[in-house]
Amino acid sequence: MRNSKFVQHYYLGSGALNFLKPLLETKRTANESFVVFVIDHFFNGKEVINQLPITRDDLVLFADTTDEPRAEYIDDLSDKVKSYKPYLPVVVIGIGGGSTLDIAKAISILLTNPGLAQDYQGWDLVKHKPVYKIGIPTIAGTGAEFTRTAVMTSKVKKLGMNSDYSVFDQVFLDPDLLKTVPKEQFIYTAMDCFVHNVESLRGSQNDAMTIAFAEKSLEMMKDIFLGEMDLEKLLVASGMGGIAVANSNVGICHPLSYGLSLVLNLHHGYSICIAFNQLEEYYPEVAEFRRILEKYQIVLPKIINESVSNKDIDRMAEATLKNERPLENAFGKEWRTIFTKEKVIDLIRKM
Amino acid sequence: MRNSKFVQHYYLGSGALNFLKPLLETKRTANESFVVFVIDHFFNGKEVINQLPITRDDLVLFADTTDEPRAEYIDDLSDKVKSYKPYLPVVVIGIGGGSTLDIAKAISILLTNPGLAQDYQGWDLVKHKPVYKIGIPTIAGTGAEFTRTAVMTSKVKKLGMNSDYSVFDQVFLDPDLLKTVPKEQFIYTAMDCFVHNVESLRGSQNDAMTIAFAEKSLEMMKDIFLGEMDLEKLLVASGMGGIAVANSNVGICHPLSYGLSLVLNLHHGYSICIAFNQLEEYYPEVAEFRRILEKYQIVLPKIINESVSNKDIDRMAEATLKNERPLENAFGKEWRTIFTKEKVIDLIRKM
Repeated sequence: MRNSKFVQHYYLGSGALNFLKPLLETKRTANESFVVFVIDHFFNGKEVINQLPITRDDLVLFADTTDEPRAEYIDDLSDKVKSYKPYLPVVVIGIGGGSTLDIAKAISILLTNPGLAQDYQGWDLVKHKPVYKIGIPTIAGTGAEFTRTAVMTSKVKKLGMNSDYSVFDQVFLDPDLLKTVPKEQFIYTAMDCFVHNVESLRGSQNDAMTIAFAEKSLEMMKDIFLGEMDLEKLLVASGMGGIAVANSNVGICHPLSYGLSLVLNLHHGYSICIAFNQLEEYYPEVAEFRRILEKYQIVLPKIINESVSNKDIDRMAEATLKNERPLENAFGKEWRTIFTKEKVIDLIRKM
Repeated sequence: MRNSKFVQHYYLGSGALNFLKPLLETKRTANESFVVFVIDHFFNGKEVINQLPITRDDLVLFADTTDEPRAEYIDDLSDKVKSYKPYLPVVVIGIGGGSTLDIAKAISILLTNPGLAQDYQGWDLVKHKPVYKIGIPTIAGTGAEFTRTAVMTSKVKKLGMNSDYSVFDQVFLDPDLLKTVPKEQFIYTAMDCFVHNVESLRGSQNDAMTIAFAEKSLEMMKDIFLGEMDLEKLLVASGMGGIAVANSNVGICHPLSYGLSLVLNLHHGYSICIAFNQLEEYYPEVAEFRRILEKYQIVLPKIINESVSNKDIDRMAEATLKNERPLENAFGKEWRTIFTKEKVIDLIRKM
């Protein structure tokens, strides 16, 4: 049994972002203080930047999210913050998708914990209280705004900093920020949440709380994507899916998607969709997922084609099978006898 | 828009209470430190007391919950804590139903905030960070373990300390603690949660988050009470109903129940049931509520009979109509023209 942690504070609703300025003012109490804004590079030069209460002494870091966050990149950004002033920032804010939010989480930790990002890949390795941090999602589905994971890839593994210290102190859920997301990215990321719920519900490592969150989130996702779009509701569904999965576990799809992402350098939401689409023998919800893609006119390409070598496929399978906890969640303790490397390779070849 | 606050940590599951001792040990770091256990007097001499990690220097207060918590009683208990040692406790723990939990919340506040309990009846009047506090419900439905209210009655009003500082830092949700609750009390209290959800959903002061929590909690309540009993699930439903109502508002039933409680000295859950049973013209869910009572063979008596004077009924109506915010939530800004004193008296006479 674990002591589960919720994000402590959230603003929800259109215009929520307006409450950032007064909140930061309560933190900027010292004569010498600054705030770090970690912003998805997509927003560089965009209108939303002007809405942010950035003052002269603050540090703005545009996070390059072309690739999934790399541990070394996070180290570089943390070093920039450390060398910016002779003192620490009072707040670290992440504004963007899951990658940006996770980078902000990791930076807040590395500012008060010695060593490199890769030292904290794993479970409960963080020892010191991080800098106060705020998460502001600009896309919905990753759940990163509510989870205790800062996902990252180092040279050897894709594994998050899983720690209560990764949880944001404050979240702003403003549906207005979601309005400019391109359709494909919007759907791929939302489906990450859909899959979180399915994997959490169909695994064994859940409890009455995570089941309630995952069921409600899944129901809301179906309402939103097969019924009427509602961005505020989508932010809530994303958050609830995040809470569910953070306190239970993913299953078969995430490990497969990690293999795809690692070898083919694909974005998380996209590789989740590619993998989930081939998992109907495990997850009956794949049928509804396909109906959603159809409704939004998204056609998933075949990505495992002649340009992908057998060696690459082998690496994907190996990376998939490293995810022992999720696979045990899905198949039980004897998962290795069921979800064999051959089976994994079969699935990958279909993708 | 409000900055909503969640309880930060919770343990959930059978045996959760076993994690209390190690958690307290992380708080008992100073040479001189003690913990205050505020325990429902019902447990005095009962087995569960032996399960609690009470050490020699700790202070145990058995809270008399025969009546609803009174502000003066809370002042008395707070004074006992203040005079117990020349320093403050490191933790205040509430173990019991909604009344006990609310008393513990209020004590933790009064230890660091000057004056009397009645000074903080209202919204956001607490100024100083309270003593760290833990909530351990032994009955499900009040939602007190997850809300920002410490309900109390002073000489003039039944009104809670509504403050982020009323929120527990840590909650233990252990279904084993619910096993010895007498049937009537169990149902009355659970129905408090049922009503929280209905009032929250049928009001106007809600948002996508509170709607999701209230819908899910209501669905779970129906599953549990019209389908299969599940105490862990009930604790989650109670918590979600609490979160929903704390971040939206109650409606017609709670104001009426406050009038009943104030004048006839009835317990909250019981007066909620008495009042809700007469509200079918506003809440269609009364039908399901009655099916639940029937299934559990609970017959509500007629309490407004010849022994209740017209003057008492008038006082009940006046007390009901003081609850402006809930009634505005239910009926809109013009609520006074719809929910007139005559209407209120009509309803009360039926109870």
